[in-house]
Amino acid sequence: MGSKYPPSVRGCLPLWALTLEAALILVFFFFTYYDTSLEDQKVLMAFYQVCQDLTVMAALGLGFLTSSLRRHSWSSVAFNLFMLALGVQWAILLDGFLSQFPPGKLVIKLSSIRLATMSAMSVLISAGAVLGKVNLVQFVVMVLVELTAFVTMRMVSRKVFSTEDHTNMMCIHVFAAYFGLTVAWCLPKPLPEGTEEKERTATSPSLSAMLGTLFLWMFWPSFNSALLRNPIERRNAVFNTYYALAVSAVTSISVSSLAHPRGKINMTYMHNAVLAGGVAVGASCHLISSPWLAMVLGLVAGLISVGGAKCLPVCFNRVLGIHDSCGVHYTFGLPGLLGEITYIVMMMHQAVWANAILYQVLLDAGLFSLAVATGLASGLLTGLLLSLKIWKGPHAAKYFDDQAFWEFPHLAVGF
Amino acid sequence: MGSKYPPSVRGCLPLWALTLEAALILVFFFFTYYDTSLEDQKVLMAFYQVCQDLTVMAALGLGFLTSSLRRHSWSSVAFNLFMLALGVQWAILLDGFLSQFPPGKLVIKLSSIRLATMSAMSVLISAGAVLGKVNLVQFVVMVLVELTAFVTMRMVSRKVFSTEDHTNMMCIHVFAAYFGLTVAWCLPKPLPEGTEEKERTATSPSLSAMLGTLFLWMFWPSFNSALLRNPIERRNAVFNTYYALAVSAVTSISVSSLAHPRGKINMTYMHNAVLAGGVAVGASCHLISSPWLAMVLGLVAGLISVGGAKCLPVCFNRVLGIHDSCGVHYTFGLPGLLGEITYIVMMMHQAVWANAILYQVLLDAGLFSLAVATGLASGLLTGLLLSLKIWKGPHAAKYFDDQAFWEFPHLAVGF
Amino acid sequence: MGSKYPPSVRGCLPLWALTLEAALILVFFFFTYYDTSLEDQKVLMAFYQVCQDLTVMAALGLGFLTSSLRRHSWSSVAFNLFMLALGVQWAILLDGFLSQFPPGKLVIKLSSIRLATMSAMSVLISAGAVLGKVNLVQFVVMVLVELTAFVTMRMVSRKVFSTEDHTNMMCIHVFAAYFGLTVAWCLPKPLPEGTEEKERTATSPSLSAMLGTLFLWMFWPSFNSALLRNPIERRNAVFNTYYALAVSAVTSISVSSLAHPRGKINMTYMHNAVLAGGVAVGASCHLISSPWLAMVLGLVAGLISVGGAKCLPVCFNRVLGIHDSCGVHYTFGLPGLLGEITYIVMMMHQAVWANAILYQVLLDAGLFSLAVATGLASGLLTGLLLSLKIWKGPHAAKYFDDQAFWEFPHLAVGF
Repeated sequence: MGSKYPPSVRGCLPLWALTLEAALILVFFFFTYYDTSLEDQKVLMAFYQVCQDLTVMAALGLGFLTSSLRRHSWSSVAFNLFMLALGVQWAILLDGFLSQFPPGKLVIKLSSIRLATMSAMSVLISAGAVLGKVNLVQFVVMVLVELTAFVTMRMVSRKVFSTEDHTNMMCIHVFAAYFGLTVAWCLPKPLPEGTEEKERTATSPSLSAMLGTLFLWMFWPSFNSALLRNPIERRNAVFNTYYALAVSAVTSISVSSLAHPRGKINMTYMHNAVLAGGVAVGASCHLISSPWLAMVLGLVAGLISVGGAKCLPVCFNRVLGIHDSCGVHYTFGLPGLLGEITYIVMMMHQAVWANAILYQVLLDAGLFSLAVATGLASGLLTGLLLSLKIWKGPHAAKYFDDQAFWEFPHLAVGF
Repeated sequence: MGSKYPPSVRGCLPLWALTLEAALILVFFFFTYYDTSLEDQKVLMAFYQVCQDLTVMAALGLGFLTSSLRRHSWSSVAFNLFMLALGVQWAILLDGFLSQFPPGKLVIKLSSIRLATMSAMSVLISAGAVLGKVNLVQFVVMVLVELTAFVTMRMVSRKVFSTEDHTNMMCIHVFAAYFGLTVAWCLPKPLPEGTEEKERTATSPSLSAMLGTLFLWMFWPSFNSALLRNPIERRNAVFNTYYALAVSAVTSISVSSLAHPRGKINMTYMHNAVLAGGVAVGASCHLISSPWLAMVLGLVAGLISVGGAKCLPVCFNRVLGIHDSCGVHYTFGLPGLLGEITYIVMMMHQAVWANAILYQVLLDAGLFSLAVATGLASGLLTGLLLSLKIWKGPHAAKYFDDQAFWEFPHLAVGF
Repeated sequence: MGSKYPPSVRGCLPLWALTLEAALILVFFFFTYYDTSLEDQKVLMAFYQVCQDLTVMAALGLGFLTSSLRRHSWSSVAFNLFMLALGVQWAILLDGFLSQFPPGKLVIKLSSIRLATMSAMSVLISAGAVLGKVNLVQFVVMVLVELTAFVTMRMVSRKVFSTEDHTNMMCIHVFAAYFGLTVAWCLPKPLPEGTEEKERTATSPSLSAMLGTLFLWMFWPSFNSALLRNPIERRNAVFNTYYALAVSAVTSISVSSLAHPRGKINMTYMHNAVLAGGVAVGASCHLISSPWLAMVLGLVAGLISVGGAKCLPVCFNRVLGIHDSCGVHYTFGLPGLLGEITYIVMMMHQAVWANAILYQVLLDAGLFSLAVATGLASGLLTGLLLSLKIWKGPHAAKYFDDQAFWEFPHLAVGF
């Protein structure tokens, strides 16, 4: 059965991945050491707790969120783990080398693992747009290019715009979504026939995607509060994320049934829109000081996300020719835009008191444009790179197919 | 395929849910603000930890526990999330307004979210008895009525009987089980033919129900210790819950095989009975001072739960005409009764030393009767409300069917 | 349908399990009491956190890891829970009685539950080698014998070799793997025909096995750092485990595709090898002081694990006649050997400075040999015990079959 699929990965994956891994080990050997300062055991545990929540979100949440493609669930989950494991190592090095001047040996702390896990999530988000259309070697390239672009963008925004870690990290949704969409635009489009059948959602994969959604939903307050230092800001972030998520869950389920002529709820829209509140509230979660604003954001984000998922694919698929495998645009892109705009408005509102409104608007809009521009530019670069023949990417007729990558003991009949 | 199902939800769900959500936002706008006192970061993290454990139990544990119905797993998980998100918002307002006198603006703390999540779990437990027989609009009504009744009951028991939060919260199992059973009694019974096939358990849904069971089993000590303030009581609660759960897991699996003529284990009994120990030990977990008593409780709870699941359905289904979709009576009802009786006996035993035995018995029995009576009365009210035609509930022939609510890209054939 | 299966379990399981449970309750009644010292609330929470991580790994991680057998997933998950619940109770008593001299009443602390959960994991690991070939009564016997051997071995190594808890606990992988393999060697071999079909992996079970793998992967740093007291050592353990796991995830996925003639990745190899890094780094994780060494260990462990899974089964199955149901040898055995050897080398390296190299090597090699020897000897004893007819174990033709143990409402057709 497997004979119709080209032995595409074999030639280069182990070679590339092991060489890269060996190179990373060498760099770690020469340039890094562990932090040896004596820290308080309790602080350590609290840090470790947050790291673990983020790892759960990245490995399990984002992995299973994209597992609803009928014949592609193995690849979704396993490739996600692969990219996370590789991305974290690469991001720690990048973060260290770019933030430290004069360059020297890097100190590895728990906080660097935390930051690296969050950065690596950008790749996992982008991957949702191209999943099923690229092989693992192409993902390795994407991890390297996207993380470099993302970490550089964050460093520039920290140095040039003097933003906090939290603020520049929260551009991740917009950056990753538009990066992924641009890559998807560059790749060959899936053929119409056959693909639809494979894209269809089955019940059991949908339950595992629901599991991913739930883990993201439950741990999102940890993500939004992870980089905040002030306890009050941190608590506000937890509260606001909690409220925004609750409202966007209610909204997305009810609006999803409005979008169907016979009032049926769409599972895929729901996977996307349930999380929209957490994305939208991300950038401004530490500034919002009463629950209603977070709730309004959650409501609007849920509406935008379901509305986008209902109306935009036609325009995106037909006019622009972008095929978004797992709805990254509606889950992260549009709510992320809403979040950035809210942040700019809130900073304007604060700046009114300080008579610096124009400066503040320019600063925030600049940061935001930088994120989008870097995302689009590096996405274009990656997309062009990935379209090269040398990676032996899957043929458009074999998209969304676990059989191209996995050894099945039997013919997989779909579940 | 979908044409046989009435467009029941569409007419009213988005209208109702969004109006309600808008009303909630308005109330939050006028009447709430965040706690602005400076708290210790570590206390905050510990609180957040407990909140998260409870959210995992509610969203994931209770959601997946009920996902074993063969054709109803999407609805089980998604409706559970919907009710949780709506219920938490409603419970925070109720808790705030009822506990505060003179009425004024509510302060929202992490502890109010914790309390609201626990209160909202009462709806999720009750839902297990009616799942598959009502639509989402009916669930919205149920959330509003049940939470109002439950929070009012708790407030009365706090004011009148001067009970601790932990003690009145632990009535949740008995309250929610009898509320749910009463609602199920009022609803039209499922037709015998066709339903059985849909109620049958398939392997893969059973594994996801097992996942729900495991998450509840693992995090139950957090639930039982969440509202205790004294560190010693809290540790005892963790210990006793841990032991009771371990014994009820062993008991339920072995007794389940005794209940079958050929010695086979029943997966559904097991889902119910594994958790019985945690339920039974709930009310008295902070008072028990040595492991053997918790272990005996776990053993008896496991026996009662499996015994009830084996023997009672005949009597319940045929004589009383109550159809309990997911065995709420055996998982929460009977072990909850055992727990309340144990609590009354333990308080009596303590009161013997204080020469106030009669008073104490009356007090505890009063609290317990109040919980059961409120559950039955509000359940009857809700049941009658839900039987009204205006909600366009599913027809008895279409019970337990995801297709009534969900947009399927294909005919769901059962997995 | 069920009539072909002998009513094997019924006769003895409830009898045995309930008698045992009653005996355990009696022992707990006479010989244990809870720790009543006043502990700091925060210390309590941190302890509880670690306990919970370990429980998640044991109940969910190890349970779902072995759920990939096509027709045996219910038994894998449920028997795992049963053995954990029973094993924890037994291990607490053993730990207490063996470590305390003069014998007296045992104090139960959170730290004893933590230690007992870790000890009980040895049974869950061994069970992976015999899963599908024994019934639950045989597992009860295995829990009792294996835990007694393991806890005794740890006590001897603590008293005779004066090792730390962490060091003697980390022999768990080697001990449990060789125990399990020896038991598997004693049991009747599965018949070639029919079994292969049942052993085949289906997509949906593979996803749940992936879920188990992910939970183990995410929480492994908690396992490796749980018993360390020094905050610096603890942090190093977290760091090193994190790095080793990241590298072994990357390695195992890429090498797995090298092992297939057409470059396809093998899901089963991946389940095994992803975790190899965490196993290999276990014994020495607190001593390694820079990330590269942990990364090298992760790389080598991934290579060994995939290589072993590819090449050894032929030799094991045909020559030695050992049938390893879930690849315990490659997941825990070989990486555990690597870890122990690394530990010996690292201790030698340290001892060079202290001029005690020979003594140190003898000490560590003695500890290591003790673990392997105890594992093999007690495994042989258990294997011979389990081969007795009195347990009415499943017939070799009925291996790997949920139907022998579970009441199915319908004929299970494999998912």
